[in-house]
Amino acid sequence: MDLHPSPFAPEDFPQMDALDGFRPMSAAMGMKYQGRDDLLVVAMDEGTSVAGVYTKSKCCSAPVDWCKAHQEQGAARMLVVNAGNANAFTGSYGASSVKAVADAAAKLADCSPFEVFMASTGVIGEPMDPDFITMHMARLMEGGAGSLVDWHKAAAATMTTDTFLKVATASADIDGVGVTLHGIAKGSGMIAPDMATMLSFVFTDAPIDAPVLQALLSRHVETSFNAITVDSDTSTSDTLMAFASGAAKARGCAQISELDDGRLETFSEALSALLKDLAKLVVKDGEGVSKFLSITVEGAQSDEAAKRVALSIANSPLVKTAAAGEDANWGRVVMAVGKAGEMADRDKLSIWFGPMRLAHEGQRDPDYSEAAASEYMKNAEIDIRTDLGVGDGSATVWTCDLTHGYITINGDYRS
Amino acid sequence: MDLHPSPFAPEDFPQMDALDGFRPMSAAMGMKYQGRDDLLVVAMDEGTSVAGVYTKSKCCSAPVDWCKAHQEQGAARMLVVNAGNANAFTGSYGASSVKAVADAAAKLADCSPFEVFMASTGVIGEPMDPDFITMHMARLMEGGAGSLVDWHKAAAATMTTDTFLKVATASADIDGVGVTLHGIAKGSGMIAPDMATMLSFVFTDAPIDAPVLQALLSRHVETSFNAITVDSDTSTSDTLMAFASGAAKARGCAQISELDDGRLETFSEALSALLKDLAKLVVKDGEGVSKFLSITVEGAQSDEAAKRVALSIANSPLVKTAAAGEDANWGRVVMAVGKAGEMADRDKLSIWFGPMRLAHEGQRDPDYSEAAASEYMKNAEIDIRTDLGVGDGSATVWTCDLTHGYITINGDYRS
Repeated sequence: MDLHPSPFAPEDFPQMDALDGFRPMSAAMGMKYQGRDDLLVVAMDEGTSVAGVYTKSKCCSAPVDWCKAHQEQGAARMLVVNAGNANAFTGSYGASSVKAVADAAAKLADCSPFEVFMASTGVIGEPMDPDFITMHMARLMEGGAGSLVDWHKAAAATMTTDTFLKVATASADIDGVGVTLHGIAKGSGMIAPDMATMLSFVFTDAPIDAPVLQALLSRHVETSFNAITVDSDTSTSDTLMAFASGAAKARGCAQISELDDGRLETFSEALSALLKDLAKLVVKDGEGVSKFLSITVEGAQSDEAAKRVALSIANSPLVKTAAAGEDANWGRVVMAVGKAGEMADRDKLSIWFGPMRLAHEGQRDPDYSEAAASEYMKNAEIDIRTDLGVGDGSATVWTCDLTHGYITINGDYRS
Repeated sequence: MDLHPSPFAPEDFPQMDALDGFRPMSAAMGMKYQGRDDLLVVAMDEGTSVAGVYTKSKCCSAPVDWCKAHQEQGAARMLVVNAGNANAFTGSYGASSVKAVADAAAKLADCSPFEVFMASTGVIGEPMDPDFITMHMARLMEGGAGSLVDWHKAAAATMTTDTFLKVATASADIDGVGVTLHGIAKGSGMIAPDMATMLSFVFTDAPIDAPVLQALLSRHVETSFNAITVDSDTSTSDTLMAFASGAAKARGCAQISELDDGRLETFSEALSALLKDLAKLVVKDGEGVSKFLSITVEGAQSDEAAKRVALSIANSPLVKTAAAGEDANWGRVVMAVGKAGEMADRDKLSIWFGPMRLAHEGQRDPDYSEAAASEYMKNAEIDIRTDLGVGDGSATVWTCDLTHGYITINGDYRS
């Protein structure tokens, strides 16, 4: 299948220097893809803490089961990611594959298997032979510095239907010491579970205890990866993990063990911004994307209610096809507000497309201009804002349009 | 816009004789459409009882507000349906338009305005001038028998983006007297709120009190119109109403006033079958449809849970595009089960496409044949069945695939 690059593909990528405590390596296993790296191994220094957020799917993949079961102990020494096979819906064989990889990695890194974390993306329901991974992982670990790759190449090894590389970097200040956050992501479609699961990993040299890192990750995922949607479908494998090596301690930055530690402030902001950047990149590479939509709902009963209404708008096939057709069809926004199930009052509802108010107090705005609204819809990035007028809750989510490209990618081939 | 006829368009339509107590009439108002009837008026005998089920949208249309407010009194003398303008999100002007039509109809039929029921389908947010309707309605009512049309023509006057007429008829036996149920429907897409709202009306000569009729309608809507989805979007105007003239009393059939009256049995079955027929016709004319999908979920914790999982599968863009591509992609069914939020156990899950079991106990079926599964997907009607293995609840819903045709209809034009 020929994938057209997204029109939002960045022209250049941020520089990402080597990060103390992390040794990224990649290899071409040929598990499914040929002529490209499809295995990422990140070895980590002793003392690295870990946090994770995973798909809520009741049918999650074997590696997700593994990560959820073992992250509680808080320490990580290896991350192993493969592209081409999701190891999902693979029964007991799938679980034994993950264990085989973890055992092999533990021997190589001289750590507990429970300090090895895995993520897999690719075909669902296909048994995954762990030997591919263990063989190439051993070769990488034995190769020393010669096996190391930069973070761009690390990210590239995790891609499936992605049409561009997704990386971001940020920095923060703790105790007057600069720390770095590197993030990589893959995903193209909120998900297409047989090809395009969302995976993202954040690496930092900041010294932060696992429970604190977990609390920050759980907080900021709500306004980043949990605020995006491409097609409302949720992968069996979605995984977001953060690893903190603590290497910045060597530069005078003391360990942070409490969530209310004031020194966390710039780090928390940097993490939030980094996750938002990565999440938006996933949407901007949404399958078949031609428009990037920011959906803001204000005046809801609560922030949670606002988010549910925003997702109702963002997931509506009719709103998304209207965007694809450059149709300022605010009536479909009314429909999506109405069906969301949250408190709304038709006669208090206002809707803006960009700077233009199109609907106000339950009817078309008196100043509505079809020509101006249509002109606005020609933009590549479109802001849709709704005021429900029933409270103070607000939320923003991001999505893309629904195009012939999506149908072609997901329907016009036999996987 | 050129609408391709659905491949499921029936080759012929059931004969529908005149029905005692109802006088259907239609006219070409030219409100939006030209060269076709776009107004349906059904005058009804005194003593006709009424029941209705409406959209749950928080932003419902002015006619829905009117019908909900006045159906409690239980009696109906007129139904007025227009195509071309939905009178939705039209503020106080919309409410006054409905009142103007009801007042005019009440004068013509010598009844209370509260015995007049209205439904409108078409563009959203466009003020609807009631004079179009009142003028043509008066002409029809004054035309006597010369204004009468058959039920096929009555149904045709309510169509918008429908590519074929949707009618059904059934009969039942009460006190040894044959009674008739005629049903008409329009809708093409669960909804496209600016064009393709779902409206359906059932007319019967059976003598049934309004509360009993309401109870039957509310019960059977769950397994018919509330068990279909095209694109998960819910109209501001969806309306299903039933009218019982009681004319069969003249043939010796006594009034039914209790829901537990044993004489209701064949009527209840006939109503259920009629509503299912009409609901399936709406899906078979779903925007861009090429496949008709029956989704059955068994082994759920409850019937309600089964229905939520079935709708999660039926609304999944990835399941729907796979069907369009004739791809036996059972992994996407796993995904849709997993995201539904209902109790499921990956390792107890089984999935059948038609007669073939593709997945069993959390992994691909040992006897899985890609070739046979692909061959099955070439059928126009596809059955997907899932056993969750966690209880006794079951449900079936119907949907269509998601095709380039849907994108073209909803995205490739300026409405």
